[in-house]
Parts: sequence; structure tokens; C-alpha cells
Amino acid sequence: MNEDRKIPVGVSARHIHLTQAHVRVLFGEGAELTEMKPLSQPGQFAANETVAVYGPKGSFPKVRILGPVRKATQLEVSRTDAFSLGLKPPVRESGHIEGTPGIRIVGSAGEVTIDEGVIVAARHIHLHTSDAERLGVADKQLLKVRVGGDRGLVFENVIARVSPSFSLDMHIDTDEGNASGAATGDFAELLPE
Amino acid sequence: MNEDRKIPVGVSARHIHLTQAHVRVLFGEGAELTEMKPLSQPGQFAANETVAVYGPKGSFPKVRILGPVRKATQLEVSRTDAFSLGLKPPVRESGHIEGTPGIRIVGSAGEVTIDEGVIVAARHIHLHTSDAERLGVADKQLLKVRVGGDRGLVFENVIARVSPSFSLDMHIDTDEGNASGAATGDFAELLPE
Repeated sequence: MNEDRKIPVGVSARHIHLTQAHVRVLFGEGAELTEMKPLSQPGQFAANETVAVYGPKGSFPKVRILGPVRKATQLEVSRTDAFSLGLKPPVRESGHIEGTPGIRIVGSAGEVTIDEGVIVAARHIHLHTSDAERLGVADKQLLKVRVGGDRGLVFENVIARVSPSFSLDMHIDTDEGNASGAATGDFAELLPE
Repeated sequence: MNEDRKIPVGVSARHIHLTQAHVRVLFGEGAELTEMKPLSQPGQFAANETVAVYGPKGSFPKVRILGPVRKATQLEVSRTDAFSLGLKPPVRESGHIEGTPGIRIVGSAGEVTIDEGVIVAARHIHLHTSDAERLGVADKQLLKVRVGGDRGLVFENVIARVSPSFSLDMHIDTDEGNASGAATGDFAELLPE
């Protein structure tokens, strides 16, 4: 592997982002998310709080909330999870939830049903601006990234997301992790164009 | 896509192969597997019969048996399934079960616990001898195969299995299908060396 083009891998299990309004419906008036542990991206955290989600076919009793709160509530699941729930969410970039399926969300103090917001997250790489310069990558560029090992493969259409507030990390979901054999903490290689 | 190098894709859900002896333990003296529908490989079939399997952590109540009977009983699961069962099976070629985890199998008339036989199937392509000649592929060769679409990727280490009794078909598991967006009936492209 080219050491200069190594990308840390993070495998994202199903999780949910909530608006402040939904946090209060789900956990009570005045409730705030509380941090359990920090994530790879600065300022992001896994919350102590979890919710249950109910699809037309199945449910998950304990879905981790990732904070801080966002402008829109969004549930990110793998395709495998989607089949269990009985939903057919599209593959989308985070925040692009127009026309996606909704779902019922239940917290310790209340529940809410969203009309849209369930997605299968598009694989992507967070790059700090300096990483992007070093690697010659532009924001929104579609990249190819190779994972080695006996289930080795090359992911195409990996979306570059560049920001001075990001830390270098490729995010794939559990289906992609299982299919490639890549686990959180492994490294993948950014291939040349 | 290069039309000459198109490979049909088949996504294999979890399934089990049984020995004749185990069929009789599980379904009763004199029992035989009965065909529900033929599979892509000549002579292979999905049986009407199913079994339940019980791992240390979870179980699946209805696992399809694929016939005809084999020399060794073998349960093929995805990595996702393996987590649910609480097992850590290796990625193996079919039939290579030495040192793999065992599992408890329950049929309508009895049960059996195998000491080994649970695998995550290594991705592979069945090629008729004439396909192999046409495509310049040797038995056991490791191939690269590209799946298009928004989750497009290139599978590496796809094992060629060549026989005059095979029909051209690439077999991947449900994790690999979900990660690549490929479904049974889709086509992938065999890449040049």
C-alpha cells in the first residue's frame, strides 16, 4: 500500500441524528443529548441516549443517537437493516433526504413519526483541507479506494467531503465493511485517477 | 460494459447443504430432499425442506436447504448473519470446512450438531469450460469483476471455478450484494488482468 495515500476506515453501524425539537419530544422538555464518547470527526459524538425505530416490517429497539443536534432528523441504516425494517431507502449523501422514506421513532418520553429522513449513507471520505491539498482531491470528487485482504475490493464513487473542520476518515456502512472485510481502524488506499 | 465479458450475478442468501445421513436424522428415516426450484447450476436445486440453526448468540428459524446432498454438511452465511449467530466463520471456498465453527441444526424429525462446517462463502464465478476458454480464464484463477451503479465497485479475489457441468454465474453473498447494489439477474463485467 502507498503509505502517502493511506486512509483510515470507519465502519458506521446504524445510527440516527435528531433535531433539538425532536430530542425534546423524545426525551422530555429541556432535554439535551449527553456525550458518551467522541467520534473521529471533531465535535461529533455518540450520545448516551438511544431510540427505538419501527418500520412497516421490523424494528430496532436501540439505535444510537449521534450528536450534536442537526437541522433535520435522519436515520442512517445499511441495506440489510432496511430490509429488516421493510423500507427501501435510497443511497444518499448525509442531509439529502428529500423523498426518502419516513419512520416512527420512540424515545423514553415520547415519540415522533417523520415523513422522510431514512437513508442508506453514500460511502464518503472526510478530508481536512490540508489532506485534500496533499492528495490532490476536490470537494465532491468521486474517488476510488482499495481495501486489501481476502475480500479485497475497490470502492468506486466514494464522495470526497473537504472541510477545515474534518479529520481524514473514510466512512462505509456495515454491509460495505462485511463485504470488504474492512473494520474500523483498518486502512484503505486512495487510488490514483 | 464490454458485452463479451458480461457475467450474470447471483446473490446467495444464507443456505445449507446436508449429507444424506443428516437429511435422515433431521427429517426421518428414508427421507429425501424434494425440489422446490432449480438453481442456476445444472442439477442443483432449492429444496422444499428447511432447518433451524442455533448459534451461541442467535438463531435462524428457517434456512433453505440446497440439494442434492453432499459429502459434508455446510452452512453458508453472510458476515452479518455470523454476527447474529455469534460465530466467526472464515471466508472459505465451498467444501473447505477444516477448522471452521460448528452449529446446532434442527429439522422436523430430529437434530444434529456439527463440529465444523459454517463458512462465509468466498465470492466465485462458475464457468463452463467453453466460457473459460472464451474469456481466457483458468480454474482457481483469482479474477477482478466490476459492478456498476451508484454503489459501483470492483471485487478482487473472485475465484474462477471451471467445469463442463457449470453454467456462467458469479456468486456473491447478501453483504456483497448490498454493498455493491448488485441483485440476482444483474450483470457484472470481468476486468482484464
